[in-house]
Amino acid sequence: MARIIVGVMGPGNSASEEDLRNAREVGRRIALEGWAVLSGGLSVGVMDAVSRGAKEAGGLVIGVLPTADRQGASPAIDIPIVTGMGSGRNNINALSSDLVIACGMSAGTASEVALALRAGRAVVLLTGNEEAIRFFQGLGPGIVIPVKDPSEAVEIAKRMLPSGGGS
Amino acid sequence: MARIIVGVMGPGNSASEEDLRNAREVGRRIALEGWAVLSGGLSVGVMDAVSRGAKEAGGLVIGVLPTADRQGASPAIDIPIVTGMGSGRNNINALSSDLVIACGMSAGTASEVALALRAGRAVVLLTGNEEAIRFFQGLGPGIVIPVKDPSEAVEIAKRMLPSGGGS
Amino acid sequence: MARIIVGVMGPGNSASEEDLRNAREVGRRIALEGWAVLSGGLSVGVMDAVSRGAKEAGGLVIGVLPTADRQGASPAIDIPIVTGMGSGRNNINALSSDLVIACGMSAGTASEVALALRAGRAVVLLTGNEEAIRFFQGLGPGIVIPVKDPSEAVEIAKRMLPSGGGS
Amino acid sequence: MARIIVGVMGPGNSASEEDLRNAREVGRRIALEGWAVLSGGLSVGVMDAVSRGAKEAGGLVIGVLPTADRQGASPAIDIPIVTGMGSGRNNINALSSDLVIACGMSAGTASEVALALRAGRAVVLLTGNEEAIRFFQGLGPGIVIPVKDPSEAVEIAKRMLPSGGGS
Repeated sequence: MARIIVGVMGPGNSASEEDLRNAREVGRRIALEGWAVLSGGLSVGVMDAVSRGAKEAGGLVIGVLPTADRQGASPAIDIPIVTGMGSGRNNINALSSDLVIACGMSAGTASEVALALRAGRAVVLLTGNEEAIRFFQGLGPGIVIPVKDPSEAVEIAKRMLPSGGGS
Repeated sequence: MARIIVGVMGPGNSASEEDLRNAREVGRRIALEGWAVLSGGLSVGVMDAVSRGAKEAGGLVIGVLPTADRQGASPAIDIPIVTGMGSGRNNINALSSDLVIACGMSAGTASEVALALRAGRAVVLLTGNEEAIRFFQGLGPGIVIPVKDPSEAVEIAKRMLPSGGGS
Repeated sequence: MARIIVGVMGPGNSASEEDLRNAREVGRRIALEGWAVLSGGLSVGVMDAVSRGAKEAGGLVIGVLPTADRQGASPAIDIPIVTGMGSGRNNINALSSDLVIACGMSAGTASEVALALRAGRAVVLLTGNEEAIRFFQGLGPGIVIPVKDPSEAVEIAKRMLPSGGGS
Repeated sequence: MARIIVGVMGPGNSASEEDLRNAREVGRRIALEGWAVLSGGLSVGVMDAVSRGAKEAGGLVIGVLPTADRQGASPAIDIPIVTGMGSGRNNINALSSDLVIACGMSAGTASEVALALRAGRAVVLLTGNEEAIRFFQGLGPGIVIPVKDPSEAVEIAKRMLPSGGGS
């Protein structure tokens, strides 16, 4: 039986301290729900922080790497999927996630949010970027939910997940 | 010697009449500059309109198709690139374009604009979506240029192209 | 710490009864070694048989799907990676596997073996197709090992795995 | 109206002098038929030789690059398609070609031949690798044609092309 997979996306090198704290806590809470976490897999930024958070709480951590080998993967990744596709792998991140949580915003993150909406996935936005919130809510009416903290992010995820979540 | 390639992205089925008129005229003007046009290749929306506009003006038209065969390609395409990758091909559209012009906005278009910015490409926005303009200008300061009509779009493209354009 | 991942490739609809029996037993033995199994993920042929075999023995089962959703995935898959890329995902299968075992042969399987060799992965061939064995041994001298049954396949895998295997 | 596109695949750095001579002549003859040539696009091996041959004869040359920019592209390429996907782009080469001609053999070439057969494309083999010929003829009965020189390669292509070829 396939696991519930929650994708967590966010900036790499440009992640803020708050993005990293949020991602770590989101990862921890996802693991406690019994969901697998999926991220972009590299040892940097939100990808790394969410993986570490989930790992600390005993979760299963999937990393869909842009690179052609495991070099540079977060040490917290259990399942490295090696694509060699650069940002071309962003669509795989979107399609493989039952729901996407964005911690922070960047060009790469924006592409993943947009691809998730294109694929009909619900997106939870944990960011202070008000323009992002307004823009994406316009693109995906009813399936883009801004939240204020990791706890609310995971509560909303529970409600929005196709199956009704991990219960 | 590689051709200058200008990518033109925009909504498919949800394109407005104005998006289609703009795309056709942008295609025509790109062809007159001697640049090749690249689009998502399908026989619908902005992809189709820009291809027809470029073809009418004698341009070279490249279509990077999401499908696994040429079925559904715009009849104006000269060079169908068949990816079988769905929206995964959006990153190829971004990387293969020296510059991107967006006519209108949708989730797919937003992913292409974001991936273009991720790759350092300049993006010209021909859309009335003010939230899109503000959001993407924040993501790509100095390389996202909103314009009011096809003529201005191509004038800006000429200035922004790495080589200084088709002259 | 990333899991050891063994990719098992083989025909879909054209798999023989022997291919299916072999794949199931290979899956079972891989799970008993503590390695994760990776396959093409669909509910057909060797992809399905290896997934079921691994699942029965309590293994972790990864399916890298060619489709754009989970429809058609083997019910034995734990981690569905949804690529929407058709056979374009074959390179991801090759890159993500520490070692590849082919059960049977087809055009798709041949592409995965070739891509694995291109990426420097060792390949174990469990097939009666003598032309395949000679051809691939010529392409990858020293890293293509023909075997006669599932037990030998997994014994060889243990020896060839970069880390010395699951011990 | 979409151009007829013939894909020419072959080894990169490991190409023999004969592979390069064959590829150059195949490229020249394809251009004279009025078909576009598609290759892997890099400035090395068969990709480069076929592009140069086609360019010399005034042909249109498409390069589907594995890299994330135009660096390293053959100078004879007119249309660089930048995929950033490494060998993942091999499936695009196969799908985008109406027919594939292989000059020489390598692991990468083998993957392209196999993916072309998977997609139902006819493949012309210009190689002295007898094991490759026997293996691929077994995989694609009736659509894998070995030839002895560039002239025969293009004659066979003319007969096998879906439309009856460029006449």
